[in-house]
Amino acid sequence: MAPNSDLPKSFGLLVYPGFEALDAFGPMEVVNTLSCTHDMTLAVIAATRDPVSTQSKGVHAVGQSVVPTHTFADAPPLDVLFIPGGWGGFNTGPETLEFLRRVVPKTGHLITVCNGSAVAAQAGLLDGKRATTNKAFWKDCVAYGPKTEWVAQARWVQDGNIWTSSGVSAGIDAALAWVGSIFGEEKATDIANNMEFVRTTSSTSDPFSSMFKCEDVPRQS
Amino acid sequence: MAPNSDLPKSFGLLVYPGFEALDAFGPMEVVNTLSCTHDMTLAVIAATRDPVSTQSKGVHAVGQSVVPTHTFADAPPLDVLFIPGGWGGFNTGPETLEFLRRVVPKTGHLITVCNGSAVAAQAGLLDGKRATTNKAFWKDCVAYGPKTEWVAQARWVQDGNIWTSSGVSAGIDAALAWVGSIFGEEKATDIANNMEFVRTTSSTSDPFSSMFKCEDVPRQS
Repeated sequence: MAPNSDLPKSFGLLVYPGFEALDAFGPMEVVNTLSCTHDMTLAVIAATRDPVSTQSKGVHAVGQSVVPTHTFADAPPLDVLFIPGGWGGFNTGPETLEFLRRVVPKTGHLITVCNGSAVAAQAGLLDGKRATTNKAFWKDCVAYGPKTEWVAQARWVQDGNIWTSSGVSAGIDAALAWVGSIFGEEKATDIANNMEFVRTTSSTSDPFSSMFKCEDVPRQS
Repeated sequence: MAPNSDLPKSFGLLVYPGFEALDAFGPMEVVNTLSCTHDMTLAVIAATRDPVSTQSKGVHAVGQSVVPTHTFADAPPLDVLFIPGGWGGFNTGPETLEFLRRVVPKTGHLITVCNGSAVAAQAGLLDGKRATTNKAFWKDCVAYGPKTEWVAQARWVQDGNIWTSSGVSAGIDAALAWVGSIFGEEKATDIANNMEFVRTTSSTSDPFSSMFKCEDVPRQS
């Protein structure tokens, strides 16, 4: 294990019913692989310790369930938190938003995937920030953040210690870019190659923005 | 829901301790999205119903746990089975191999990801077949299949109803190609675009084979 006393060590993943599988497990693949060489912890955080399914009832016929390790009540202090999107992200409920409002300001880094940025925006965490989100449901997502400057042509957007990615698989690119910025580009490249992932290394390389006819949305208020 | 009486309906995912997160959840993202328009079931199958972690002890510091829905003893008849790789795949044990030997010959389609093909090869399921596997651990993987013709320059290989993919993220491309072959290319493209996944559509487009200096391995016996 590489010594990493100054590096992020306490990782967290928020899960809620109807979270998107790849939104969470793309970045978690990056995190798991990083943990082969860096000492760290991971808290999988939900409202309760009951298994949480990716299945959004009425949308998917099937899903997979993951086991939280912590609840909103006992989550440890975090150096970095990942917020996935998913159908459930359009209505996570007040308890989730309250948790985010309480914890994120004390968290070193925030990484959202897909409409995970809409969840963060709903909690007010993206007020006055530049961000991006899912391109296939662009208008639905940006509506959650009237105080956010939404960038359409972006695989991901970094604004300080907040990283927001475009839809689903873009979370892998954002996670790798974040690893590159913190743990070094060599580590990010090594992880991507071991994942045999054909990586997008430019934050503005985004074929889906034009495909889904997305346009920048300025801060409304 | 589209009527699909002749299409695969009973999906299965094998999990075992130390399975690779993205090997499973890349293809599951495809399956979950497919299930928005096609009626289907999914069995997450393991030795027992205890949660199964991606963490390979001594390799990863962290992992995530998923909840099986079925055991080897009560798994339903399957139209398609996904076998992920991962560090645990190098030693799944006799019970897993016995399950595969019993079930796969009666399963319509087999899709392996990464060294999931080494698991399948160990069970004898790739004897006399063409296949590919993880490129970063190529020699370790192909050693599990002396009766298999291993193809190095491949994102995935289809041999009849057996699809084997290269490492980790290649499973997404293989799953999408499989969906294209069964449910139509339009459906595969639609799923990929909604995943905002920059897809590899050629089975022989594989930058990692040369990166990791992999060479074809003929059938040894």
